[in-house]
Amino acid sequence: MKSYRKELWFNAPTRRAFINITPQIEGCLRESGIGEGLVLVNAMHITASVFINDDEAGLHHDYEIWLERLAPHEPVSQYRHNVGEDNADAHMKRQIMGREVVVAITGGKLDLGPWEQVFYGEFDGRRKKRVLVKIIGE
Amino acid sequence: MKSYRKELWFNAPTRRAFINITPQIEGCLRESGIGEGLVLVNAMHITASVFINDDEAGLHHDYEIWLERLAPHEPVSQYRHNVGEDNADAHMKRQIMGREVVVAITGGKLDLGPWEQVFYGEFDGRRKKRVLVKIIGE
Amino acid sequence: MKSYRKELWFNAPTRRAFINITPQIEGCLRESGIGEGLVLVNAMHITASVFINDDEAGLHHDYEIWLERLAPHEPVSQYRHNVGEDNADAHMKRQIMGREVVVAITGGKLDLGPWEQVFYGEFDGRRKKRVLVKIIGE
Repeated sequence: MKSYRKELWFNAPTRRAFINITPQIEGCLRESGIGEGLVLVNAMHITASVFINDDEAGLHHDYEIWLERLAPHEPVSQYRHNVGEDNADAHMKRQIMGREVVVAITGGKLDLGPWEQVFYGEFDGRRKKRVLVKIIGE
Repeated sequence: MKSYRKELWFNAPTRRAFINITPQIEGCLRESGIGEGLVLVNAMHITASVFINDDEAGLHHDYEIWLERLAPHEPVSQYRHNVGEDNADAHMKRQIMGREVVVAITGGKLDLGPWEQVFYGEFDGRRKKRVLVKIIGE
Repeated sequence: MKSYRKELWFNAPTRRAFINITPQIEGCLRESGIGEGLVLVNAMHITASVFINDDEAGLHHDYEIWLERLAPHEPVSQYRHNVGEDNADAHMKRQIMGREVVVAITGGKLDLGPWEQVFYGEFDGRRKKRVLVKIIGE
């Protein structure tokens, strides 16, 4: 069994952002030399997500509105976590969108469906944050 | 390390459906001959889910009502994604229910709790769509 | 490839609870002797979650309020599942918080970000329930 590990760093200029990281994951996979296995891609921070969905700007706009409706940022005082913080909503948005994805590796490629793209979802940006890519296989 | 891959195809006759796919996953596992490892089961489409919960019709009805409340299908015009599409809500419902499950394999069996069943969750059906089963182990 | 399996048992005295299980997972990892690989940690029950977030009491209070708003326990009669049961809401809360996490193992340690802690999330407690820890790697 082979294993591979890499950290990807992000610094979103806005509080919230969706960044397509599929090309970086493909780069990691090539670097790993692994042909069959699984890749785990997870946010290492608890106010961010890694998820798989469509790379379509209208949908990302809809997600932004929808997540704000389900877990509003304001008023920040509604959350007990927000003592010296203002990111309680980000901890909630991340639970809906998820921490991680596991993707199959087949024949040296990410085994994704036709529209599947891997995203970093930032809900409390304007700081450096990391994603972990861990691959195991052969 | 051994690996195994199979696609399962579905064509739900309705927009939304929950289909118990545990027997198919068990069939894949037998076919793989893998006794210890992990199985990844994921929707290959971004308006569908794979999740684990109870095979109980009342609960599935409740899920349907609940998901519609959290991410309503109509009015379709409320979503910017719905330009030539009407499935933005399906992209949201799928995030709540999840893209994938990872299940342990122990002694050649799916290592599930007493009530755990694996479901394909369709939120934009009436077309052919796929689930990926990838098993690694020994 | 090596594999390791352990069940962790819980009996929360309240209907809902968040229990930090990171030390138990670390104990399992040491016991396994696995240095590189993946650990799957999943609830074996369908009204409970395993998730990763912050070990901060204010946030856990906020999660409790938030989950109750998204999937209210009462009136129990609003759910068709609640025939001889009163836990339909727990099946919903668990979908939002997730069934499982997969964590990378690197150099014999859980490869977690600085604030990442693994939690058992109970939504229908006051009974004995289990979490499965499955590790594969070398």
